[in-house]
Amino acid sequence: MGITLPMNPIGYIRAARCAADDDGWDQVAARIELDTTQFGPEALLGLAAFSHVEVLFYFHATTAAPETGARHPRNNPAWPRVGIFAQRGKDRPNHVGATICRLVSVHGTTLELCGLDAIDGTPVLDIKPVMKDFLPRGEVHEPAWASALMQRYW
Amino acid sequence: MGITLPMNPIGYIRAARCAADDDGWDQVAARIELDTTQFGPEALLGLAAFSHVEVLFYFHATTAAPETGARHPRNNPAWPRVGIFAQRGKDRPNHVGATICRLVSVHGTTLELCGLDAIDGTPVLDIKPVMKDFLPRGEVHEPAWASALMQRYW
Repeated sequence: MGITLPMNPIGYIRAARCAADDDGWDQVAARIELDTTQFGPEALLGLAAFSHVEVLFYFHATTAAPETGARHPRNNPAWPRVGIFAQRGKDRPNHVGATICRLVSVHGTTLELCGLDAIDGTPVLDIKPVMKDFLPRGEVHEPAWASALMQRYW
Repeated sequence: MGITLPMNPIGYIRAARCAADDDGWDQVAARIELDTTQFGPEALLGLAAFSHVEVLFYFHATTAAPETGARHPRNNPAWPRVGIFAQRGKDRPNHVGATICRLVSVHGTTLELCGLDAIDGTPVLDIKPVMKDFLPRGEVHEPAWASALMQRYW
């Protein structure tokens, strides 16, 4: 099982926030600048017809070893210990984040976004349009700790 | 900008479908088996309290060079040419797929899922719980071609 899949950033995030913070991400303006050695404006053609995009990015600034077992989310003992794949924290195997953002505008090889919870300089792995049929089908349930954790996130 | 980010599969998808197909994915039973040399059941602790998970996976079976510009989705000329980041096709830079599935059950290091559009043997990069606050905020809009493409997908 020891194979390695190499990934190359398709671009980088430029944002006002330079250090990871737990909350208030909606106040942070952010944009993605595609790597223009790989991509031109054609790569984003038609994207502006979507209201939202999903951004896959790499948690590059984390220095902690990835958690492979369970822990309290945000190390808060008030919340139950849960497995790393039952939480969305950054100290995870492969260090990939995935966030749905509102697409504000597309200009050339730059996207302006609202609601991107990533710091300045973050490498971007992919951008996908949000299609309604890729959203959850059926009612969404989550445990109480998850709702509590997200209360001031945006 | 030429950095490489190495990723290691956290597990593999076991599914009844062995070749990529455009439609009818909801009829395909699928499970994820974590790589037990890296993870034990603790990595999935508490995940069963969520109704849905997002699976990030690697399109390993595609042999085409990744599209970096624009093309017709599914090469269908009835739909407009759009950039690779305005569509969700597999021949994309970094070959990463991201799909929200219904979580059927968790047993040890195995997850049973409904609605995972990936073939047997697909490497998994990450599993994230779907939290309501990570779903789109505000109304979701998409172009007509996207709704048409998804009509028989599930």
